Order: sequence, then structure tokens, then C-alpha cells
Amino acid sequence: PKMKLPGQEEFEVSSACENVPTGELENGPGSCPSPDGTSDTDRGDRGVPTDSLLFIQLNELLGWPQALEWRETGRWVLFEEKLEVGAGRWSVPHVPTLALPSLQKLRSLLAEGLVLLDCPAQSFLELVEQVTRVESLSPELRGQLQALLLQRPQHLIQPTGTRPCQGSAHPREASHNEEAPLKEQRQNPLRQKLPPGAEAGAVLAGELGFLVRPLGAFVRLRDPVVLGPLIEVPLPSRFFCLLLGPSTLGRGYHEMGRAMAVLLSDRQFQWSVRRASSLHDLLAALDAFLEEVTVLPPGRWDPTARIAPPKCLPSQHKRLLSQLREVKGPSAQHGALAEDRHGHWPHAPSPELQRTGRLFGGLVQDVRRKALWYTSDFLDALHPQCFSAVLYIYLATITNAITFGGLLGEATNGAQGVLESFLGTAVAGAAFCLMAGQPLTILSSTGPVLVFERLLFSFSRDYSLDYLPFRLWVGIWVATFCLALVATEASVLVRYFTRFTEEGFCALISLIFIYDAVGKMLSLTSAYPIQSPGSPAYGCFCQYPDLGGNESQWKKTEPKDRDDISSMDLGLVNASLLPPPECARRGGHPRGPGCHIVPDIAFFSVLLFLTSFLIATALKHVKTSRFFPSMVRKVLGDFSSVLAMLLGCGLDSFLGLATPKLMVPSEFKPTLPGRGWLVSPFGANPWWLSVAAALPALLLSILIFMDQQITAVILNRAEYKLRKGAGFHLDLFCVAVLLLLTSVLGLPWYVSATVISLAHMDSLRRESTACVLGEPRSFLGIREQRLTGLVVFILTGASIFLAPVLKFIPMPVLYGIFLYMGVAAISSIQFTKRVQLLLMPAKHQPDLLLLRHVPLSRVHLFTAIQLACLGLLWIIKSTPAAIIFPLMLLGLVGVRKALEWVFSPQELLWLDELMPEKERNIPEKGLEPEYSLSGDTEDSELMYQPRAPEINISVN
Amino acid sequence: PKMKLPGQEEFEVSSACENVPTGELENGPGSCPSPDGTSDTDRGDRGVPTDSLLFIQLNELLGWPQALEWRETGRWVLFEEKLEVGAGRWSVPHVPTLALPSLQKLRSLLAEGLVLLDCPAQSFLELVEQVTRVESLSPELRGQLQALLLQRPQHLIQPTGTRPCQGSAHPREASHNEEAPLKEQRQNPLRQKLPPGAEAGAVLAGELGFLVRPLGAFVRLRDPVVLGPLIEVPLPSRFFCLLLGPSTLGRGYHEMGRAMAVLLSDRQFQWSVRRASSLHDLLAALDAFLEEVTVLPPGRWDPTARIAPPKCLPSQHKRLLSQLREVKGPSAQHGALAEDRHGHWPHAPSPELQRTGRLFGGLVQDVRRKALWYTSDFLDALHPQCFSAVLYIYLATITNAITFGGLLGEATNGAQGVLESFLGTAVAGAAFCLMAGQPLTILSSTGPVLVFERLLFSFSRDYSLDYLPFRLWVGIWVATFCLALVATEASVLVRYFTRFTEEGFCALISLIFIYDAVGKMLSLTSAYPIQSPGSPAYGCFCQYPDLGGNESQWKKTEPKDRDDISSMDLGLVNASLLPPPECARRGGHPRGPGCHIVPDIAFFSVLLFLTSFLIATALKHVKTSRFFPSMVRKVLGDFSSVLAMLLGCGLDSFLGLATPKLMVPSEFKPTLPGRGWLVSPFGANPWWLSVAAALPALLLSILIFMDQQITAVILNRAEYKLRKGAGFHLDLFCVAVLLLLTSVLGLPWYVSATVISLAHMDSLRRESTACVLGEPRSFLGIREQRLTGLVVFILTGASIFLAPVLKFIPMPVLYGIFLYMGVAAISSIQFTKRVQLLLMPAKHQPDLLLLRHVPLSRVHLFTAIQLACLGLLWIIKSTPAAIIFPLMLLGLVGVRKALEWVFSPQELLWLDELMPEKERNIPEKGLEPEYSLSGDTEDSELMYQPRAPEINISVN
Repeated sequence: PKMKLPGQEEFEVSSACENVPTGELENGPGSCPSPDGTSDTDRGDRGVPTDSLLFIQLNELLGWPQALEWRETGRWVLFEEKLEVGAGRWSVPHVPTLALPSLQKLRSLLAEGLVLLDCPAQSFLELVEQVTRVESLSPELRGQLQALLLQRPQHLIQPTGTRPCQGSAHPREASHNEEAPLKEQRQNPLRQKLPPGAEAGAVLAGELGFLVRPLGAFVRLRDPVVLGPLIEVPLPSRFFCLLLGPSTLGRGYHEMGRAMAVLLSDRQFQWSVRRASSLHDLLAALDAFLEEVTVLPPGRWDPTARIAPPKCLPSQHKRLLSQLREVKGPSAQHGALAEDRHGHWPHAPSPELQRTGRLFGGLVQDVRRKALWYTSDFLDALHPQCFSAVLYIYLATITNAITFGGLLGEATNGAQGVLESFLGTAVAGAAFCLMAGQPLTILSSTGPVLVFERLLFSFSRDYSLDYLPFRLWVGIWVATFCLALVATEASVLVRYFTRFTEEGFCALISLIFIYDAVGKMLSLTSAYPIQSPGSPAYGCFCQYPDLGGNESQWKKTEPKDRDDISSMDLGLVNASLLPPPECARRGGHPRGPGCHIVPDIAFFSVLLFLTSFLIATALKHVKTSRFFPSMVRKVLGDFSSVLAMLLGCGLDSFLGLATPKLMVPSEFKPTLPGRGWLVSPFGANPWWLSVAAALPALLLSILIFMDQQITAVILNRAEYKLRKGAGFHLDLFCVAVLLLLTSVLGLPWYVSATVISLAHMDSLRRESTACVLGEPRSFLGIREQRLTGLVVFILTGASIFLAPVLKFIPMPVLYGIFLYMGVAAISSIQFTKRVQLLLMPAKHQPDLLLLRHVPLSRVHLFTAIQLACLGLLWIIKSTPAAIIFPLMLLGLVGVRKALEWVFSPQELLWLDELMPEKERNIPEKGLEPEYSLSGDTEDSELMYQPRAPEINISVN
Repeated sequence: PKMKLPGQEEFEVSSACENVPTGELENGPGSCPSPDGTSDTDRGDRGVPTDSLLFIQLNELLGWPQALEWRETGRWVLFEEKLEVGAGRWSVPHVPTLALPSLQKLRSLLAEGLVLLDCPAQSFLELVEQVTRVESLSPELRGQLQALLLQRPQHLIQPTGTRPCQGSAHPREASHNEEAPLKEQRQNPLRQKLPPGAEAGAVLAGELGFLVRPLGAFVRLRDPVVLGPLIEVPLPSRFFCLLLGPSTLGRGYHEMGRAMAVLLSDRQFQWSVRRASSLHDLLAALDAFLEEVTVLPPGRWDPTARIAPPKCLPSQHKRLLSQLREVKGPSAQHGALAEDRHGHWPHAPSPELQRTGRLFGGLVQDVRRKALWYTSDFLDALHPQCFSAVLYIYLATITNAITFGGLLGEATNGAQGVLESFLGTAVAGAAFCLMAGQPLTILSSTGPVLVFERLLFSFSRDYSLDYLPFRLWVGIWVATFCLALVATEASVLVRYFTRFTEEGFCALISLIFIYDAVGKMLSLTSAYPIQSPGSPAYGCFCQYPDLGGNESQWKKTEPKDRDDISSMDLGLVNASLLPPPECARRGGHPRGPGCHIVPDIAFFSVLLFLTSFLIATALKHVKTSRFFPSMVRKVLGDFSSVLAMLLGCGLDSFLGLATPKLMVPSEFKPTLPGRGWLVSPFGANPWWLSVAAALPALLLSILIFMDQQITAVILNRAEYKLRKGAGFHLDLFCVAVLLLLTSVLGLPWYVSATVISLAHMDSLRRESTACVLGEPRSFLGIREQRLTGLVVFILTGASIFLAPVLKFIPMPVLYGIFLYMGVAAISSIQFTKRVQLLLMPAKHQPDLLLLRHVPLSRVHLFTAIQLACLGLLWIIKSTPAAIIFPLMLLGLVGVRKALEWVFSPQELLWLDELMPEKERNIPEKGLEPEYSLSGDTEDSELMYQPRAPEINISVN
């Protein structure tokens, strides 16, 4: 039931938060026409020819009566920038506020004044002549006024440090224009920031004492003309408005001028006034504007307070809806809303997730779809942006390889290690980029797989199994199971993984990370014990057995036995005070309770651990701070873990203490001594273990399926505007094949990693050129290609020679980064926010949409159930049955299903998402009482809030 | 030129940010009538009888046609609270936004509808009968409508955890009221939050299909009546408005109802409508409201976004000004503004700072003024609030005594100590509370004096002087100089200490604190060196000389000399591995390079230092977080340093390491061994030193004068609304006398401490009872009395027996608190914010008023000059001439004077403040071009922003 008002198609845009000033959008080399035309649907607005962007400038006449001068005191595109006269700078862009009387005065001035529509003036001079041709002016006054109008205005042209938008503006200057723009105007950096094709509107207002009655004129030029030095940027002007009058109104002219400028900067008013054919149409447009304004009561709001631009503009779509409501009543709106809600559904069944019903049907479809794009997947990479993306992702990838490699090496007692991590990442990653359905995905060791591998290793150690052959069989079985999942198109079930499941998954893994990081840190303090003053462990000799062979006995004495000590005869003859390693090197034996104690290491490790954690956290926050140019902020924020690691290593090597370091083999061979690069299929294990391995493999398959597919769903969300489609089945297939390969080679296992893949996509964003005046750049899409990923992994492979350098990395630093990952992941989920709500008194709670629609007690109940599930998972994880935790994670889907008996669909809609069947029911079932009761426009906010990728499931 | 519009006196209030709903303000036992009447001037608004506060409620008719019911969906006092139907809670209070058409529709409905002014109805039944007596209704419909109106509405009564305001409401129920309020209404916690005398207004709106045409009725009751269950709180209702009609308008009735409610909640509309005598007056009031609304353009602001209540409401004064401007043009406004700017001047010459011209004239005046209040200074303390103030300030005081005592003890090598600090604080503080002009002041050791004392001690050590006798003479001279300053009324010069001087002072002291804290921490690591693996210092024997007297030689061997080591014969026979202290106790000698090394202490100290600093900082931030009930937040924030110290001590004693601890004498005697409680006047010093001491005394006098008077000015600022006046001269006199006393006893020196005194005042705030619906509580004044301070210092004196417990406090914890103090102090000044601006790109800078009025380059220049001054001060501080730094601080006043040649008065006005002469010039000189040009209302914001006590000069 989406209605269209005649002639308003331009305002209907389907993007969630559309800040695109609909100029000609950039067509970079990466944006090819869609071969099958399916993915072009959400760019439907681009076909319609749209009006140019308007830059509005207010020139004010100041200094009456002594020293008249024109000065630009305000400018608008979407938001207002005011000239701070004292400071000589432009204010921050803000939402313009007007006083109602100034709009009314403006209306009456226009109604009485001169309105010229499609004025044929070709220069400013002609325009001024036309405008001053009013009866009320004597010829003398007219001349004076013309001279005044032609006076050159003062502009504040501010040099900015911001980068120009790509594809800078080439204003279409009217060739017959006599008044060339000034150099100052041409060099205005603002010019770079306006999209090509932008037009200008000039408002001239002020107090002019020699006028007897106010003079108002509104001109729409037939052809836009560059009006000499009038506008600070040499844009062709389309609109011109003059508001002058005697001093009776005081600052009224300033306010009227602002009102006119705000009107002209409104897209709906612009649209109407571009098509107006009479004064009546102009006034009707103004009245339509007034109908839509928001009114703030006096005394409750300081009218001079500046309102910061909202993060997300109300869409024109919404304005259309509100007009619809006026016309059709609330029912029309509800229909539109319901449809909209459905359309923006995060798990809306994309075509890639439709079941075909044939064996391997999904895989075949994926391969067919992606094959069409295969050439463009390489051509689209020819853009300078890809270089910086490669550098960024390369650094992130090796950081991951080092961290996970180090931890795996420790967890598996060397069966995996940093060298395996580098090699495996390079091989698996590069192969995936070449074969996968979604080549933007970065494969990596992820938290869940790391946790499972650790459990598998301790299981095999407990039963004295030969680990790598056992692991090979697990890998073979997992690959088999995954292939079965691909064959049966199981990926479509991913829609049953709602936020509830995702958050449970993420929270458990994050908590394991945090627990492990702190636990490992504490275990270091028992490896390097602290000497408290009362402890008897003190002192260490170096004793040499060489002289006479008469090795003396040394007895540990208890200090409590006073007489023993004083009568003790140690009888040492050949000894020195060399440190134990030196002593041993010289053939002596270190003797004494203090010999095994390395002082200071425990506390220094704690310091390193805390430092790297805090530095990484602090640097991450730099990204959103106000300090430093945005480039520096971005680098510091993006490379926070690398920088924290470097800083930790620097601190460690500066003090030169013997902290525990990362174990790295000195040459290119597996970390585990005595094994080749191929794992033997049986080793010391009995033959039946190859069958029994199917059981842990089943668990790992569940884990890999969940980890891989939840990530894939996040990466393929509608808000990233991917054109080449996803490949859920193909991706899982590739993961299965690579898992087999890495098992055979004894390398770590890999699946898609959410955070690093999102960072990859983020570094390949295509954005609009419009970046003017407080308006956020709008997002056009991602450079979808295979090359950046491929180059990253080739570089990673080449970095294996870096390995010897890595032995300088102290383990506490890695634990710190590990803790940071866990904390960052758990902080990113809504569950954590809801847990925080438990600690907040109701009146201090933030104004979340969730809390507006669900009773607090129900929110708390939902959180408590999640906490209980998490507690149960944790208990299982702590028992010997820990290895079955993937099955329990899958059990979360069942718990979520059961929640439908506890919570209403409305509540689940706000707290979680709906599961496929329920989701299908809602539109048929009609709207719940809530909607018909308080179904005012604010519910539709949800639709216009882009879903942030808040799930950080892979902890990487 | 402050004009009054006839009949609008009520709206003229002089307070800076007046959020007082002018009900009957609280008259606690502490507020006595002013004996001389002078200090009553700024409570002028209390004499005028004002209208009652109005609570507005919107009841909406829902469920047409099936299940009609009334439900309260909105309520207003100042801000709007909306019923969140789904969540079953009231929304956060927000600024109401309206659509302009709904106001216009409301206007026409009222114009056509029934308006009853001074309706004599005595009950809801009568009222309903009156309202439904309209021609357009058939008797049948009338009956139906009456039944509907009398139906009991649904209220959401939310239990709140907030404390009720003092003096809870007693609604004046009309005795002839037949409809008793329901129990539910009476138990509504909201009732506690409305001030006594509040009235209600009810708006009933909705869609009613059986009506043929809209029905509008507005009623002003002659006597307010409790309308049964209509209003959620049993308040007598004054206004009643009915807006019903057929379904054609859709949600229009809801919006009209909201518009009516917002109108009624506007104080100016209320005022007019209470006095309206006809429909015409009512409509005129509505039109006046429309004249003043702020308009937000569509498409630039989401009309459904909720705007949080502003921190500071636009004052009615400002609305009056804007009306004035309408009437008189901009010149009238400028006059008013200039006067206002002057009136709110932070250093406005208060009567206490007027020079009398007589010797000791100021002191005599101070004594006379304060003597009048002396009895009330004790009676005013009889309020429960004073108990919690005592507890809070007592804890803060002993924390200070411990920290400064510990640091003084270290700086003066025991000449001062914790015991002296406790004793001195108690004696000086209590005496000051009894004698001083401003008894709310808390005396304490402050940063500047600590820094000076340390310099004085190292000076006396360098010249081998007997410190305490030398210090006694310095004290005698300082007291003499200070008396001279009192005699000459030098305190009036305090107005030359502008923000520039204050910030230079504060920044220097804070930097010294930070530098010292880090420096002391690092010196700990050299006292307890870290053993790096290559260091030869390893091992330690305990050797006994008892057997045979044949004491063997032990030679330290260099490990590089290989042959020496292997052939070495130590020849030890009697030795053990006892730790050195134990060894010495048993008569042995610890031998070996490792004997003097205590491992782990260095890093553990760093950990303690960082922990206490970070914990104190984090706890401070808890105060402004959303977590925990406000009581818990307040406790955690207020006691952040105590808690951080306790936590540090706990951690230290848990691990039991031999960290350096606070030195505390084991019995009640001076810390320095061998001295009595009285300092001998000469000791080992030559007689002429008593004369030479005048030189350092001059410097200390400058320091004490600046420290004391800057603090006094801050404490006596107009925004604290002190009624009993200040006593600048008397305070300085008391400080001088106490300085003499503490010098004689060899106790630390004390002056007023800013932060702790402000905390004292803050804990004694009197606030209005109004605390409804998003409105901040308004500040009425301080409980000015002498008793709380006195009790605090008596308790401090009694706490001397605590001293033995204090020896468990590790020094690194104190250094951490010290660092925290320095960082907190330097973060609090505007200078720091301007230094941060240097690091921010222009477009990311916050929208500071300063930056709106002064060019960025000038701001940076000012900051650079301040930085240069600070650098110079730092250099002087690092030379042997460090002791002259107070003179240099005074030099800042000269630099500031010289800045008048560099910056315009306008710029200095925004960057700093004006000095007395310039200040006097400004109003005469008229306004600079800036004001006549952009002199719009926003400049007046400054006047309405209460100056925060941002100077934290005493670092305590």
C-alpha cells in the first residue's frame, strides 16, 4: 500500500539513512554495470533526474548609516554555518532555528514584493537592473541602490585542511558571463567540497535607512549565472532574494534573510519553487513548509542554543509518509510501516539463502553467480584505495597470526606455533580469496576454533594419543560433515541463529578469552614466584665439584631451629656467586633455595600485561576523540594492537629482563621437533581412533558452521550494499576443503573472521563526493574484488622470514592483547548493554528504543535468561565434558525457540529478532495493540537506523 | 536602562540560572532573617506573590469504537513525559516538540468552542454538566458524553526510588469536595515531588465517532477542585480542557491535546490565562506564545527525536529582554546586556573588598559584620544535613593530613611528619573556624606551601642551618608581613589576580606535583634496583665470625676474568643462607653483592603507584556515570582518594612485601627525635639569621597572600549566594596568627584550601523542594555556620591515636594519590582546554563560546604566552634560585597587565577577565563593533552560565 503522490518520485529513496545530496553520484572505475540486473534494485533512485544541490549564502548589509558594506554572514547547504564575527571563523554546522514571526514577516514581504520567475538576466548587472525596477523607487534612489548592490561583498574564505572530495567540481559557467569570478573565489576550498553541478542561491538582506518602505524581491533565473563576486564560490546562481528596508524592523531583516535561506535550503521547498509558475505557488510552498516545521515552546528551550546536526537525517521517505498520513489517515501509514519493517529485516531471506531443493543446488547456484563476476573481481581492484587497504589488512593479519600462533603454540605444547600460523594463514587465505563466494572475507584463526583446539589437545594428552594424526582424522571427518551440510543446503538454517544465539556464542568465547588471559598471567606469577620477606628461600651458591672430588653435602635448614643454624657446618671450599646459568656453563652446580628464583619477572610481566591492554584500549578510543587530524587518528585507532605490541616489546627490551618470550623455531621447519610437513595418518594411534574421531569432528563441525555462517550473514548484510551477491554454500565448501588441507599439513584451522573482514570491507568503501557543511559522506558500496585479499596473504606468506624477529615478543604482551580482544568483543554486544541496565537506576537509563517499547521487568527477565544460559555453558566448559560445548551453543537455538512461550512476538522483535516462521506471520496477523495505540511516527525510527555490525563473534 | 513591562514584575528574577518553580520556597531552620538587610538583595523575587506551579495531564480517549477508555498518555510540569505504552513506563523528560498545524487547529477549535472563565463548579460532576451544556449536542448524546467523561481513567503510577523532597506536599483540598481521591492517587510518589500549593490542569482529548462536529471546551475554575480520579495525583485542578471530535482528524486530537498541555505548562501563557477575562484574552495569549516559539525546519531535524532538557533553562529575564528588544530596538537590549555583564562579573567589587582608607579599617569592618551573625553561626548548624557534611569533610581532612604529612615528612627529613600534620590541622583548623570571617573555609596544607617548605628545607640543609629555629623566624616575619597587609587593606588588590594569574599559579603547582610524584616513584626504583640477567650482583651469604676468629677474606670477582673465577678459593667455613636481617640478628655478616638487593619491590611499587592513581581517577568518574543509585555514586566519587588508598594498602598487605612505608613515630612526640613541642628561637643558628629570615619570609608572604586570597575569592563568589558576607581581611589576619602559632610549635603551615572548602560548602547546600520531571533542583544557598568545621577538626585532633595504624600505608600509594591530585588540578583549568585546542584540527574543536568570539590564532597566541610564562617559571624552579618562585608568580600579574598592549579588551574579556580599571572603562566606552554587529541574544548566554569553580589552585 505504498502510495506515491504525483510528481514526488524524486523523494522516494529506499536507502536506510539517505544523506546523499542527489547530485551526480561518483562513478569510479570500480562500479560496473550489473550483468544480470538483479542487484541494481536498491539504486533505483539513480535513474530519476534530480535537481541540483543548492548552496545558499546570506549577504547582510551592515554599518548603516556610516559605512555600508555587504558581508556574508551565513551559509547553508543542509545545515547552517554562521559567521562568528569576533572569531573570524565559520561556526560549526548546526540545525538552523527560526523565530516564527520572521517567517510570517517574510511571507508578507514576498506577497507584496517583486517576484520574477524565469528571469532572463545573463549577468549580475542585468539582474540588479531588473530587481530595482520597482515603482516605489525614485530614479535617484534606484541608482543609489544599484550602486550599493553592485558593491563587492566581504567573504570569509577559510582555508581548510580537509581533503577534497574525489572528482572535484567543474562549475558549468555560463559562457556568455561577462563578470569573471575573482581569484579568491576560484581558490575557495569550499568549491572542492561541493558536488559538480551544484547551484547557488543568494539572499541579500539588511537595514537601509533611505528606503521608505520595505523592498522585497525574489528572482528565479531562467539560466543559472555566475553573479561575479556575490557568492563566495563561483557557482552559477539560480535564486536571488533581496530583503531591504528602513530601520524600523531592527534586526528583523537579518532574521528574514535567514528564514529565506533556510527555506531555500529545504529540498521540498526547492522542488516546489523550481517548478512554481506564480507568486501563489511560491507562497503555497512557504505555507507547505510551515505545515511541516517542528515547534519548540519558549521557556523550555534556549532559542540561541545550537543544535548539532543529527547523526541520521529524517529521510524524505519519512516526510512523504507523514504527508501520506495526512491524506490517507493512520491506516495507510501502518501498512507502509509494516512493509518497511519487513524490508529492512536484518535476516530478510536474501536470494542466496533460498533453498533450491536439489543436492548441492545452492553450491551450483553460488558458483554460477560468482563466475559471472570473476573477471571484474580483478579489474575492480585497480584503484589507489586498494593499496592502503592491503597495507592495513596485512598488518592486521600478521598481528592476528602472531597472537593466535603464540597462543596455539602454548595451548598445544608446540603442535601448532607461530610458523604454522603464518604458513597456514597465507595458504588458506590466498586459496580462499581465489575460490570463495565472498572474496572480501579474511580467513583467520578465530576464538571458538582456538578454544576447541585447546580442548582437543588436552583430551588427546589425557588419553596419551598422538595428537597430530588424531587431529588429521578429526579434520577429515569435519570436511566430510561440512560437505554434507553444503549438499543439503544447510546454510539456509542460518536464519535460526538470531541475535540471542549470536550473543551467547560471542559472550562465551569472549569470557573464555578474558579468563584465559588473566589465568595465564597469574600462572606466570607462580612460575616466577614473588619473594616475600619472611620466605626462607634466600641465597644461591655456585659450587664446583672439581677440586679433590670431595663434594660436600648441603642441607636445607629450617630457620625456626635456632641451634641447628648456629652449629651448622657447610664445609664449602670451592664456590662462587655466579648466577646459575653462568655457573652451569662453568661446570658448577647452583646450590641454594634461591637458585630457581628469577626476581622481578612476575611484577614486570603484570606491568607489561596491563600496559599492552591499556595502551591498545586507549589507542582504540583515539579514533573517536577530537585530537589530531583524522588521518593520524585513523592510523592510531586501526593499528592499536600492533602499536601496543610494539610498545610492550620496546619496554621489555629496554629493561632487558628475562621475561618469557614467544617460542619461534630458528629455521623453517615445523615447531614440533621431529615431524615433517605432512602428518602421518596413524602415528602411534590405534586404527579405530580414525573412526572415533568422528565424534569430536561432529562437535567441531557445529562450531565451524556457526562461526562461519554467522560471520557470513554479518558480512553480507544489506547495509553494505554489495552488488555481486553472497556465496554462503560456496564459502562453506571452501572452508571445508581448506580445513582438510591444513589438517594434512598440521597447520591451524581457519574460518571467516568477522572483525578483520569488516575492517577489510571498511577500507574499501566507496563514498559520495559530497562532504559539505556538517553533512556525513554517504556510502555508495564496497570495492568488491579478490585482489586485495590475495596480495595480503601473499605478503603474509613472504613474512615467514620475519619469524626470527618474533622471538623478542614477551608472552605477557600477547596476553594483554588477548585480554583486549576479549574485552572489546564482549563490550560490543547488546547483551552487555542490557547487563549494564541491571546496574542502573531506572531514571538514569539511556533512552534506548528497546526501553521505550518493552517493560523493564521483561528486559531484565530476558537478560537474566541469557545470563543463566551463559552460566550453564560456563559450567559445562569447566567440567571434563568441556569438549561438548559446541553442542550446547547449538542448544541456544532451542532455548530461543522456547522463549516464544515466554515473550510476545512484539517483545522479541525489540529484544532479539523473530525466527523465520514468526516473522512470516507478523504482517498477516496485523498489528498488535501497541501499534494502533501509540503508533506514531517514532516507531519508524528503527527503520532508519542502520544496524551496526555489533556482533564481534570471532574475537579477532 | 532595564525596562519593566507593566504587570510583568513576576518574571524578573535576578538569579543566574533560575529553575525555581516559584512555589513557596523552603524555609529551613537555617534561614534566618538578615539582621542588616544588606545581603537580602538577591532574594528579591521571594517577596512577590507568585502563581502556583501547574501540573498538566493529558488523558486520551482510546479504543474507538469498540472499547472506549481514558488513559493518561502524557504529563508536563516543565518538560514532557510521554507514556511508553509498550514498555509501561514514563519516558525520560524531554523538551516537547509540536507541529505548527496542531497549534493552529487548536486555536480555531478554542475560538469556536466553549470557554468558561471562573467557572464556579465544585466537583467533577458539576464541571462535566457545565461543559456538556452545548447546543450542538442532543440530550441523548449529552448523557452518553457525560457518562464517558465520568469514566475512571487509567493512570500509570510508577513507584520511584528517589527520595521525596523536604516538606512534602499537602494539597489544599476543597473541603466541600465530594469525590475523595482514590488511595492509588494518594499513594502516588509523584505527590511527594511536587511543591506544596501546586495545582493541576487536565486536558482530555480524543476521537469520538458519535460526535458530528468537534467539541472544544476550555474551563478555568474559580476555585481549584480535586476532580476525583481524573488526575493521577490528588491536586486541586485549576484548568480543564476538552477536545473531542469525529474521526476525520485522525491523530489530530492527540496532537491538539499535547499542544494545549504544552501551552498550559508555559509560565507566560499560564500567567496570561489566569488573568484572562474573555476568549479574546485566551487567544491573544496563544498568539503571544506563537510569537515566541522556536522553529526547526523539516528535513533537517527529525520531529520525533527527543531533545534532552537543557542544563540551564532560558530565564524569564531573557524572554523579557527579547520582548524589550521587540519594543525598543537593539539599543535597549545592549544597555541591559552591558549592565548584566557587569552585574555578573566574577570579581565584581563586593562591599567586603571596598577600601576604607583607614589602618585596619577592613579588619574592623569584617569583625563588626561577622559579630552580628556569631550566634546564628551556631544555631544554623542544627540540621541533619550537617551530620553528613561532618562525616564527609572529616574523612577528606584526614586523607589530606596523611598525604601532606607523609610528603612533608619526606621533604623535610622528619622535621614535619604525619603526627605534626594531624595536630596542626586540628589546632589551626578549629581555631580558624572559631575566629574566621568565612568559617566554611577548611584550612589545610596546600601545594604551594608544601613546595615552598621543601625548598626552604633544602636551602637550610645546603647552608647547614638548624631548620626549625630558622623556620620559626620565617614564621614570625611572615606573620608580621601579613599583619601589614591586613593593616593596609591589601586584600582589595586581589582583583588584579585574574584568571591568567590563577591559572599560572595552579598549573605550576600541579606540574610540580606531577613531576615530584613521578620523580619520587623513579627514585624508588633506584633505591630498590631491578636485577637484569647480565648483572653480576648475585647471591648473598651469611657469614659467622665466631669460630676460631679466622675471618676469611671475600673478594668480589669480575665475571669477565675467567681464570680468576675457576681458581678462586673463598675458604668459607661457617656460613648460612639466612636473609640479611636474620643473619645480622644472629651475629653474622651478610656477604655478597646481592645482599643489599630486595627483589620485586621496584615493580611492585610501580604497580601500587599506578593502581592507586587509576583507581582514584576511575572512582572520581563514577560520580557522573549512569551506574548505581545516586547515593552510592556520590560516596564512591567523594571518597575516591580514601578508597584508592585503602585498596592500595590492602593489596600491599595481602602480598606482604617490604615496600617502603609511611614513617610514623610510635608514641605521641614530635617526629624529629630529641625536640620538644616548642621550638627554641635560635638553636644552633647565628643570631643574625633571625633578621635574614625576613627575605624568605617575604617570598612566603607573597605565596600565602596569593594562595589564601585567590581561594577566598572563589569561595565567596556570588553564585554561592552567601548571606553572611565574606571576611577577606579577617581571614588573612587569622591565617597570620595561626602561622605564628604553628611555627612556634614546629607544625606545618596552613592556608585556606579551595577544593576541600568547596566540598564543604557543597555538602551544606540548601535546595528547593521542586524536583519534578527532568527539572534540576534549584540552589537556594549554603548553611553558613561554624559548627561543622569545628567538629571536623575536633575529630581530626582525636584521630591522633590513629597514627600507629598509618605505618601500614606504603609510600607508592601516597605518590599515586599525589599524582592524582596534580592531574585533577591541571585538568580543571581552562588553560588545559586551550592547550588541547592546539592539538585539535579546527573543524573538530568543540563549540566553545570563547572560540565563537576570538580568532583561533589569537586564542593560540594567548595560550602560547601562558605556556612561555609557565616554561620560564619551571626553569626558575629548576635553578638554585628556585626559592624566589613566589615573586615570579606575582610577576604574572605584570605580564597580564602587559597583555593589554597585545590583546583588545574584547579578546581579554573572553580569554581572561578584565582588570579593575579596564572593567570600569567598558560601559562608558560603549560597545565595540562586534556587539553592534552580531550582538544577537547569544552573547547573553555567558551571563546565564554559572561560573564553575574551575580553579583548583591549592591542589588538595
